Amino acid sequence: METIHQRVRTEFHYPVHFTRRAFDTGNMALREVIASGGNSRRTLFVVDEGVCTPKRNFLAQIEDYCRFHADVIESVAPPIVVPGGETVKNDGRYVDSVRSAIHARGICRHSFVVAAGGGATLDMAGYAAATSHRGVRLIRLPSTVLAQNDSGLGVKTSVNRFSKKNFLGTFTPPFAVINDFELLDSLLERDWRSGTAEAVKVALIKDQEFFRWIEANAVLVVERNSSAIEQLIYRCAQLHLQHIGGGDPFETGSSRPLDFGHWAAHKLEQLTNYRLRHGEAVGIGIALDVTYSHVMGMLSADAWQRILGVLLDLGLPLYVPELETSDLLKGLTEFREHLGGELTILLLEDVGKPVEVHKISADKMKESVAVLSQYAPVCSL
Amino acid sequence: METIHQRVRTEFHYPVHFTRRAFDTGNMALREVIASGGNSRRTLFVVDEGVCTPKRNFLAQIEDYCRFHADVIESVAPPIVVPGGETVKNDGRYVDSVRSAIHARGICRHSFVVAAGGGATLDMAGYAAATSHRGVRLIRLPSTVLAQNDSGLGVKTSVNRFSKKNFLGTFTPPFAVINDFELLDSLLERDWRSGTAEAVKVALIKDQEFFRWIEANAVLVVERNSSAIEQLIYRCAQLHLQHIGGGDPFETGSSRPLDFGHWAAHKLEQLTNYRLRHGEAVGIGIALDVTYSHVMGMLSADAWQRILGVLLDLGLPLYVPELETSDLLKGLTEFREHLGGELTILLLEDVGKPVEVHKISADKMKESVAVLSQYAPVCSL
Repeated sequence: METIHQRVRTEFHYPVHFTRRAFDTGNMALREVIASGGNSRRTLFVVDEGVCTPKRNFLAQIEDYCRFHADVIESVAPPIVVPGGETVKNDGRYVDSVRSAIHARGICRHSFVVAAGGGATLDMAGYAAATSHRGVRLIRLPSTVLAQNDSGLGVKTSVNRFSKKNFLGTFTPPFAVINDFELLDSLLERDWRSGTAEAVKVALIKDQEFFRWIEANAVLVVERNSSAIEQLIYRCAQLHLQHIGGGDPFETGSSRPLDFGHWAAHKLEQLTNYRLRHGEAVGIGIALDVTYSHVMGMLSADAWQRILGVLLDLGLPLYVPELETSDLLKGLTEFREHLGGELTILLLEDVGKPVEVHKISADKMKESVAVLSQYAPVCSL
Repeated sequence: METIHQRVRTEFHYPVHFTRRAFDTGNMALREVIASGGNSRRTLFVVDEGVCTPKRNFLAQIEDYCRFHADVIESVAPPIVVPGGETVKNDGRYVDSVRSAIHARGICRHSFVVAAGGGATLDMAGYAAATSHRGVRLIRLPSTVLAQNDSGLGVKTSVNRFSKKNFLGTFTPPFAVINDFELLDSLLERDWRSGTAEAVKVALIKDQEFFRWIEANAVLVVERNSSAIEQLIYRCAQLHLQHIGGGDPFETGSSRPLDFGHWAAHKLEQLTNYRLRHGEAVGIGIALDVTYSHVMGMLSADAWQRILGVLLDLGLPLYVPELETSDLLKGLTEFREHLGGELTILLLEDVGKPVEVHKISADKMKESVAVLSQYAPVCSL
């Protein structure tokens, strides 16, 4: 009997909105997103406690908003408030609490989970939503620079397991993303700065002009100039989304340009027991891989120094002592294993000119760490 | 700032092979499937204990096959043997054991989980694979009529949670399906027969001619004539795959033609504490919904009787006492909630002519149960 060759095509569409004060009753963004979904009003909120500052009174805002827009939105339960950061991805009880509420409160595949918070909260809530009823609609309100310009925009959900970051997860596009710039106001300095690393990353691999813009505006960004950070986030989001909308959104191949600098970043997060923020780890990962690119003779001294200079201007650390542990290089194997297929690492020939390599020299990488360690006195964590 | 409208497109391809004795060393199907995936040879086997009959010596066959084809396939661990049936979906430890092996044995996104067994085993192993590293490649070897003509072919993975069937799950296309007809030989009578219910279902909603073929060949099928069952499986698989390849593979809408008869089926499985096989429950669900179609004046007495006649010829039960419990109708709400959106139930106007309705009369449904109860003496479980 003849083999049947099955083809399955899917197409997803979702909007990424940019706004301020999404829960002011006059703000139509969330209302319109939910109304666009048909007749379902049922909504479960999952909120990162980091967003719930005394000044903002976020939970009351949500309640007011739902009351005002009750014809379109029905909050089915008090918001589930979770701790931000990796805790929420490490401890399985948080995923369970979201799934349990989806079950108990009758959230169906046409209803909504609205997750507001940093990348970790969005990843966890996204995983719970994606795996309940084979996919409940997820609306993300990212609350950090990192989540607004990178992790909150894409098609990934995840939690950690077996001490491996993102071991459990899915590729599941969100129903919508609402980037509320006001949420950034309560960020700690450190979280503000660390979020800029992904913008440097995407500029380095995709857009020389954007890199020059970051170079020119780094000081404004660090001083928390609203217009500068909003422009940085918007452009970074555009580039990130263009990439996802391009070739391989569910990453079936071995190439992962957006993971530039990430093999070391993931390992450093684990080796520092998450003392490093993800963005900080990415900054160090970028510093390491551009230094390696230079040590290997691919990247000019001038370009290399410009890149380290931008990272320094953005107040990002370039070094942690854990870089020198022998376990660092295990990050290459784990990275390959997580992504699958052949080891594929992006290096740079120039700003905006990435090159894929499939082999990394352990000796030259150690040499690169040694070079980077010279920055330890000025910029380490 | 302008909203970014993101589009994400994906396309998956997978073959469904039909063969006999897939683990004879001369059988190239599995070898070729794995070789088609590139350089990765690493393979983890998950096997339903129902397949491991003393006569077949399945685990030794797998071992021999991998040894013979060691240039292409590397079995990374002894096969994980799991109980068949709903146990494997109800008890979270089985999912965990597969994920744990994926973690410990270095199975990456380009490596393989090969699952051999009934629908429940394939659903569970599929869920574990789909959620590890955001998706490890899954090759299914369905071992029952039901899994070969229906559940083992599609894009769903799942386990049960909160006493809800398939509460946790994903839409994830397999890497390949290998239908090995020899695996059917060890089936119990009951499992053999119950698998035919999905063929009746797909014929009723899609293909009058196939329905006539089943009518004419029901006796041969029940007598376990190889050629008859193989033809039934092949045609049912074709129709099923055509449907999935059509409009809405990840079921974002409210319409679910393939779930004809399933609202009652899922509830009856639960109400009988899984005393009913899924196929048996589907048979009863079909009997109920065609009876309701007739009671509502949509379906002629002649067509209705023909349909019940085929189910009886296939040795399927038409009745269980649990049909008369008041909880049965809760199945409608749960069905709507699981699928999301508006309640959408398929009824029949004629063989091959389904109609969607969005309301079910509780009184008329009870009347339909009463009509069906007359068959209790001849065909119940």
